[in-house]
Amino acid sequence: MTAIPLARSNSTTTAAPSLVLKAGDALRERRRFTDGEVEAYAGVSGDHNPVHLDDIFARQVGGFERGCIVHGMLVASLFPALIAACFPGAVYARQSLKFVAPVYVGEEVLVQVQALHIRASTTKYIDNSLAIDGEALAVLPTLQVPTKYIID
Amino acid sequence: MTAIPLARSNSTTTAAPSLVLKAGDALRERRRFTDGEVEAYAGVSGDHNPVHLDDIFARQVGGFERGCIVHGMLVASLFPALIAACFPGAVYARQSLKFVAPVYVGEEVLVQVQALHIRASTTKYIDNSLAIDGEALAVLPTLQVPTKYIID
Repeated sequence: MTAIPLARSNSTTTAAPSLVLKAGDALRERRRFTDGEVEAYAGVSGDHNPVHLDDIFARQVGGFERGCIVHGMLVASLFPALIAACFPGAVYARQSLKFVAPVYVGEEVLVQVQALHIRASTTKYIDNSLAIDGEALAVLPTLQVPTKYIID
Repeated sequence: MTAIPLARSNSTTTAAPSLVLKAGDALRERRRFTDGEVEAYAGVSGDHNPVHLDDIFARQVGGFERGCIVHGMLVASLFPALIAACFPGAVYARQSLKFVAPVYVGEEVLVQVQALHIRASTTKYIDNSLAIDGEALAVLPTLQVPTKYIID
């Protein structure tokens, strides 16, 4: 991994050292998730998929050689977390994600967010009956659905 | 909101009532997030954006009339959570998300996942140095970046 140089701003008036973001700049952070964090996330999100919580299931059924994997959306939460750490008050509008390989519990990940385009915006969110829209691709072990997930 | 009918399978051998998923079928669940859950998620993800944790900031700076909003990625976690509840062992491959409107803390959301296409797959994930790839659009309040987020 190579470091991507960030242009230094000339401002000396801010208390903490800072740069002015420009296209091409990258933000980076290293992180690893513990068993306890994965369990806490399972509790909050309601995602108790055994590939995240049961080492034997993860290996034998999930085919993940090194055991439990971190929820993909928990790893992906590092992107808005890094953006919010740099820009408190930032509002997320869109996200596309490709889950290419698993992240194992305890494994270090390098999170990188690179600014591709920067433009001025005055867009404000409006109250809307739809909050989030999107599409996903998931690999299912079966097509049997428990009927309790049908709500009228 | 109208209910989307699900075809009932003829199987009577499974312990819990279940259906066989087919294209067009929808899964639904209702959920609301408490202050405590949003705080727990902030702790696990590291996303301490004040629009989620500080009511005054959310109103006055974020422009969110009813105060703190739930992290978009926490709301979005309900999609794989619902899929995993129905299909333990399911593996997420791709996700696109559009954050159209805020979800306020305490507000009920109806989560719906509809099967668009179903196809047989033998794809297995390979160990790869890249875990997640994607693009996002975020509205930033400033372009000043704290330099501590630069890691060589």
